[in-house]
Amino acid sequence: MSQGQLFVLSGPPGAGKSTVREALLAKRPSMVYSVSFTSRQPRQGERDGVDYRFVSRDDFWKSHQQGEFAEYNEIFGNFYGTSRKVLQEALAEGKELLLDIDVDGAANLKMRFPDGVFIFLAPPSREELEKRLRGRGTESEDQVQERLARVAYELGAARGYDYLIFNDKLDETVEGLLSIIKAEQFHTRLTANDLLKRFEF
Amino acid sequence: MSQGQLFVLSGPPGAGKSTVREALLAKRPSMVYSVSFTSRQPRQGERDGVDYRFVSRDDFWKSHQQGEFAEYNEIFGNFYGTSRKVLQEALAEGKELLLDIDVDGAANLKMRFPDGVFIFLAPPSREELEKRLRGRGTESEDQVQERLARVAYELGAARGYDYLIFNDKLDETVEGLLSIIKAEQFHTRLTANDLLKRFEF
Repeated sequence: MSQGQLFVLSGPPGAGKSTVREALLAKRPSMVYSVSFTSRQPRQGERDGVDYRFVSRDDFWKSHQQGEFAEYNEIFGNFYGTSRKVLQEALAEGKELLLDIDVDGAANLKMRFPDGVFIFLAPPSREELEKRLRGRGTESEDQVQERLARVAYELGAARGYDYLIFNDKLDETVEGLLSIIKAEQFHTRLTANDLLKRFEF
Repeated sequence: MSQGQLFVLSGPPGAGKSTVREALLAKRPSMVYSVSFTSRQPRQGERDGVDYRFVSRDDFWKSHQQGEFAEYNEIFGNFYGTSRKVLQEALAEGKELLLDIDVDGAANLKMRFPDGVFIFLAPPSREELEKRLRGRGTESEDQVQERLARVAYELGAARGYDYLIFNDKLDETVEGLLSIIKAEQFHTRLTANDLLKRFEF
């Protein structure tokens, strides 16, 4: 059985990550998506078990103490975490695993899974980003400003990713992601293991 | 204008490199192919200016001394070299440039152009490789054995490449190469330069 591959998708609020993620999974149904756990309250329209697994702060902390998270971090007072079990099982089964996590979580994962493929999704421009953040209508102006500062901070991490995609057009972004996933199947990190199997030299 | 990208395709004799290269260029006509210079005699069916630029040993050496090769090396007493001018012009014009060179030439290039994308094409198996080498009918058994030894040596370099493709089926190999070329457009090495242009943060 071939080795599993870990794909980590990060991007600041307003990059359009959820839309891209869902379009990608629709095009690549064999890919496993690991839903992050969070202790924060659901926003309007967010579905438990689809966008996040919403748990109480106490339950999150208990799970963490039992070693159930491959990584976790805290943003604006809320916890976010990645299930160790989902991750390990998918990789052991040779699956492509997609994580959608913020830059701090990705940084934690890169230290633990340096062979993962790290993809940063950025909004196309500052103007478009502000439009998207305000367009949500779910946040106050103070919160918008707070999020913009967070975005500036997150963009600073983009250089540490393997790939950086500006999400101008959904279709092109998804095509780009599919190319990356396909190309990575040929990465020497994976395929060099077949050299000895195929040749007796 | 966007930056050019250098793609280096290597593979031992019998990997099917010429066929793959021509199929790739047919699918991606915008790609520039840099024809290598060589001092060796043309084999049957090889076309000057298409497969190689065939020059005399003296002319090769004169060009080298005038600094006309971005890299050169010697195999079985013959010189092989990459035109510095073709390489520099294609990259300056923002083109995708394809080189088809052996592992020694690729090693030389990697030291000089570490941002290039290095792709190794391998035959699917030792059996298939021997079949292909003998099937050419242009070489004696001694030469076949000599080439097999060379292949073993070349395969040892595959780990240093970014990608390794076993050329089982031409169509899948070419699709794989196209994915790699597309994916590399999103590599942070290139796209991170746009961060400052797009955001004032």
